[in-house]
Amino acid sequence: MLSGMSAPQPDRILNFASDNHAGVHPDVLTAIAEANVGWARAYGDDPWTQQLGERMRELFGAVEIFPVFNGTGGNVTALATVMRPFEAVICATTAHINADECGAPERFVGSKLVTIQTVDGKLTPDLVRSAVTGIGDQHHVQAKVVSISQSSELGTVYTPAEIAALADAAHAAGMLLHIDGARLTNAAAGLGVSLRAITTDPGADLLTLGGTKCGLLGAEAVVFLHPELADRTVFVRKQAMQLASKMRYVSAQLLCLLRDDFWRETAGHANAMAARLSAGLAEVTGVQIAYPVDANAVFVSIPPAARERLLETYHFYTWDEASGVVRLMCAWQTTADDVDALIDAVRHAAR
Amino acid sequence: MLSGMSAPQPDRILNFASDNHAGVHPDVLTAIAEANVGWARAYGDDPWTQQLGERMRELFGAVEIFPVFNGTGGNVTALATVMRPFEAVICATTAHINADECGAPERFVGSKLVTIQTVDGKLTPDLVRSAVTGIGDQHHVQAKVVSISQSSELGTVYTPAEIAALADAAHAAGMLLHIDGARLTNAAAGLGVSLRAITTDPGADLLTLGGTKCGLLGAEAVVFLHPELADRTVFVRKQAMQLASKMRYVSAQLLCLLRDDFWRETAGHANAMAARLSAGLAEVTGVQIAYPVDANAVFVSIPPAARERLLETYHFYTWDEASGVVRLMCAWQTTADDVDALIDAVRHAAR
Amino acid sequence: MLSGMSAPQPDRILNFASDNHAGVHPDVLTAIAEANVGWARAYGDDPWTQQLGERMRELFGAVEIFPVFNGTGGNVTALATVMRPFEAVICATTAHINADECGAPERFVGSKLVTIQTVDGKLTPDLVRSAVTGIGDQHHVQAKVVSISQSSELGTVYTPAEIAALADAAHAAGMLLHIDGARLTNAAAGLGVSLRAITTDPGADLLTLGGTKCGLLGAEAVVFLHPELADRTVFVRKQAMQLASKMRYVSAQLLCLLRDDFWRETAGHANAMAARLSAGLAEVTGVQIAYPVDANAVFVSIPPAARERLLETYHFYTWDEASGVVRLMCAWQTTADDVDALIDAVRHAAR
Amino acid sequence: MLSGMSAPQPDRILNFASDNHAGVHPDVLTAIAEANVGWARAYGDDPWTQQLGERMRELFGAVEIFPVFNGTGGNVTALATVMRPFEAVICATTAHINADECGAPERFVGSKLVTIQTVDGKLTPDLVRSAVTGIGDQHHVQAKVVSISQSSELGTVYTPAEIAALADAAHAAGMLLHIDGARLTNAAAGLGVSLRAITTDPGADLLTLGGTKCGLLGAEAVVFLHPELADRTVFVRKQAMQLASKMRYVSAQLLCLLRDDFWRETAGHANAMAARLSAGLAEVTGVQIAYPVDANAVFVSIPPAARERLLETYHFYTWDEASGVVRLMCAWQTTADDVDALIDAVRHAAR
Repeated sequence: MLSGMSAPQPDRILNFASDNHAGVHPDVLTAIAEANVGWARAYGDDPWTQQLGERMRELFGAVEIFPVFNGTGGNVTALATVMRPFEAVICATTAHINADECGAPERFVGSKLVTIQTVDGKLTPDLVRSAVTGIGDQHHVQAKVVSISQSSELGTVYTPAEIAALADAAHAAGMLLHIDGARLTNAAAGLGVSLRAITTDPGADLLTLGGTKCGLLGAEAVVFLHPELADRTVFVRKQAMQLASKMRYVSAQLLCLLRDDFWRETAGHANAMAARLSAGLAEVTGVQIAYPVDANAVFVSIPPAARERLLETYHFYTWDEASGVVRLMCAWQTTADDVDALIDAVRHAAR
Repeated sequence: MLSGMSAPQPDRILNFASDNHAGVHPDVLTAIAEANVGWARAYGDDPWTQQLGERMRELFGAVEIFPVFNGTGGNVTALATVMRPFEAVICATTAHINADECGAPERFVGSKLVTIQTVDGKLTPDLVRSAVTGIGDQHHVQAKVVSISQSSELGTVYTPAEIAALADAAHAAGMLLHIDGARLTNAAAGLGVSLRAITTDPGADLLTLGGTKCGLLGAEAVVFLHPELADRTVFVRKQAMQLASKMRYVSAQLLCLLRDDFWRETAGHANAMAARLSAGLAEVTGVQIAYPVDANAVFVSIPPAARERLLETYHFYTWDEASGVVRLMCAWQTTADDVDALIDAVRHAAR
Repeated sequence: MLSGMSAPQPDRILNFASDNHAGVHPDVLTAIAEANVGWARAYGDDPWTQQLGERMRELFGAVEIFPVFNGTGGNVTALATVMRPFEAVICATTAHINADECGAPERFVGSKLVTIQTVDGKLTPDLVRSAVTGIGDQHHVQAKVVSISQSSELGTVYTPAEIAALADAAHAAGMLLHIDGARLTNAAAGLGVSLRAITTDPGADLLTLGGTKCGLLGAEAVVFLHPELADRTVFVRKQAMQLASKMRYVSAQLLCLLRDDFWRETAGHANAMAARLSAGLAEVTGVQIAYPVDANAVFVSIPPAARERLLETYHFYTWDEASGVVRLMCAWQTTADDVDALIDAVRHAAR
Repeated sequence: MLSGMSAPQPDRILNFASDNHAGVHPDVLTAIAEANVGWARAYGDDPWTQQLGERMRELFGAVEIFPVFNGTGGNVTALATVMRPFEAVICATTAHINADECGAPERFVGSKLVTIQTVDGKLTPDLVRSAVTGIGDQHHVQAKVVSISQSSELGTVYTPAEIAALADAAHAAGMLLHIDGARLTNAAAGLGVSLRAITTDPGADLLTLGGTKCGLLGAEAVVFLHPELADRTVFVRKQAMQLASKMRYVSAQLLCLLRDDFWRETAGHANAMAARLSAGLAEVTGVQIAYPVDANAVFVSIPPAARERLLETYHFYTWDEASGVVRLMCAWQTTADDVDALIDAVRHAAR
């Protein structure tokens, strides 16, 4: 503890506001400490980063991986590698790249995002096709990448077949399929499949692999599922200010994430807590689950008065003011007791 | 240790190539672990980041601080906050922003760097004035920021008086003075002064405060020494992909750095090792110290044949092929035995 | 005629596809020739550009004007002067800056366009308010400019009262109102009001003044209706590659445009031709006018088979494949005979 | 003449300050008027632009040409087509792209210019090779284009052999050779060779072809001397705000320029006037010609007091305050009487 400073106290009412509010899983701190052995070459030329590449190829096939600091940096580095500025990304209006990155893709890539309203945060081949317009017309941006979030920002998950259909639609239009996998592990755990089954196998082209929301301290990765797409990414990453000098500590976190018993257990636990929460809330009168709970997010409409009462003891985000839908996130750190206490609190507030 | 993988081994010959090759100081890992207590608000709204602000104001005066991931991200976020794209930065040719950031400032800020050849990596008021041209002419970029590196990329250090003179020159021309302080602690330790004595007091305006090279895992900060300059920096930082979700762990590292007994001891130790190395090498026939050893870098010319032999057992960078000057860096982790072994190796190679 | 080359022939079937297909009004060529008297300072420091400023202030009040080459350049220069990259523009999905500029605003300004679906190409205060979200949230772009097209890309026109209401809504949210006036003269002629009555008077802040579609060779202007907004625009214009060296010829064109008897007659004539066309087409069975014909554009749905037949002898753009709506533009050069011939052709095709 | 306005008067003292201060050659106004025949497709799909392509291929070989508005726009469009943002341009410090474009290349392309001090505005293969550093190093921009100005900003001209040597040096390093040909016609006229002899034949890859300084109203072109380099340039040009709607008038100007009897006579005349001026000034005591007068620029050092007197009646730019070197430009419009009057004035001032 810092001498002369009182210890900051954890904030218990935060535990459903965001999976980013959770701490670091103890295994991750251990992995970091184990990487802290003397000197190692900086900027990725270290044994941990090399092992990470090997582990990734074991899990995903012949891929190229570039560790980065955070999700926005990962998405932008991925897109900037494969796009020219007059090319466009097609994505859902709710996509993180559109709604939560403060215009970083537009600023850094110089490109336009063509956004599509969806029912549940998920694109479909028909929606994608409707957005591919003006190809060859010099006045129009040229659609180049379809970007989906897996799991989506609304807690829904694409099945392998849905991803394959989107990859086919993208490729038929001469486009690439990018997956924003900030919560890829939650999706794979929810579907009970491997990471490869929802990335490489159904034909996705590039991936931002998330770790921070799954218990890491801060580590994500840009993954090119077809290695030839990784055209000079090291320079893009550096210009995108995402090149870690002491990269071994980033790679060590990702190596920890990619242990089967780590990601499936932590993400699976978060999902299970969301399922428990969803089941409990579904029983509360006046409360309605808004979207399928496929991963670790529960979107639920709560009557305005109940919501106000609940906000006195819990911090969470209102997603849609009109419908009263709020977002409740579970994380690796969420306990069954936390969940049950929240269900009780909602029940009490909704009376 | 990751099961099924052999433990990566530290690479002893690396220990003079870069202060980024060093590991994380044990106190920093402890600080990270101590911050790992339950839930905390993400994105900087946490007690550690708040404490960091207080500690910074204690040390630097009324400043605004924004933690970021790395030095390039810090420099770019600082510059992008105070510059418009048609404005220019005046810096030394050797400046990190010019020589080592792969054009990130140009790409993100949209601005030109106006570079100046220097003798020893340090700008002077006269050099700055010579580069301020075309003011008011719509065909020319408009000089807005003077950026200096403290300590410089050549291991030299600006005195408080030199910084004050540069600040005066910048202000007289309507410009701001930015300090790239990737090794600010080494400079302060070398001068035996406070951090404030080489930043706020002599009139600098904005600062990139480095921590990673001083034993942190990965943490730097953008500091506006005049708080009114921090105009909407949170949005610039987010667009620059430098907003950490679990920021408490970044801030906890910086809090550790800013303990007086931490930065002065670690940076001072690195400097002392550089001084020992420099003194030892100065005795070796045929070897010549290239620049004053004011901080933790030793630039030294070594005869070509000797350099080749040395490269068989040590990794280091040749700075100037023509003159045979190489860079030898010391870090918090460098030991006196390491230094003495290197001196012996050079002596042996130079025979 | 160029010797040894056959004379290019005008393409009569083009005369309803675009007002950009029209030629240059003879008065404009005369104005250019009259400016061709000896030497004049380049880059805007010439008597014609000075007279243009005076004429603009006569017409619009205390404004600042910056001639540019084309509409995209004008819009981007205007926006880049008043926006920082993390700020956003709110506009209709149909807006030229969104639909027809190939992402130039995103690339050059670095900003996001927040687009709104409209019924008739026109924003309303309520629509604007619905798009102002996430203010103060570092993850979100910060809405800064409302941009409307006058007349709109669907041929509709905002009344002075509608513009005043939008200006009020923008200002109440701390935003500015920008008018893309590529066809401002058509709007003013259609409303029978002065240019000032739909720009300065109702409280707009910045304007892109179009001339090329109104019979000029190639000349537009960025106009700041509040001069203090023109903050260092000369540098923005130069970086935006919109600084004409021989600017006198651009300014001379704009001076010609701004003669009352020029813009009102040429734009009014184009509008009258559109009204004649609209009235004639409204009589044709199976054909339906899609939007109010407030200016020089007629949007009309034509049955698919009729459209195919018509395309054999006329070039025009299908606006919406699903509804069969096509766009027919009139220009200063369109004759009543042209219009009547087209009406006949549609009647014939629709049989 | 605009009614109610007094006619702006030409400014005779301007006629040596810049070739941009000259007017439009009468043949060019004729060519514009001849293109003003009815309707023509906008945006380059017109007979004049098609003829321009044919004429260019006649003159330069199998090239691709894209008309643009001005030189800065042409240079940036050319570079942005062939470069990624982490790539760099190597150019002389005096290059227009570095010294006179207000950072437009940095802002739009996102790239760094690596500048080289030269004796006379001309790069050499050795200078180029010295600037190619850090290839493959992710911290460094990757040199991609060598850009030279022909004629140079100091009035000197590269011979065909010098260009061939630079092209070889560029290609050997995996780079392209770009020619900023704002005054290409002056260079060719000065050398007495064809345009092809200093572009395609010696192996240059891309060219910005200037016309405005040679008597056009405002027309330049991006030319890819190897057509496969023109990769999606139409989109780059549109994003760079360089797509003229009524392009026929731009192309008609360029067609006029490319008549053999036009460019060689106008540029040759300007050169002859510069030669006459240079010869006359060389006789004046105290005055010294600074660089070879290979084209239409005369750089000459004039004693400070004489310069002050001369500035009372002539407008011109001081190039280097320290040495007293001023720039005197001749244009197609300069007369022998103008030249002789200036020589007299200098002689008088220098007494």
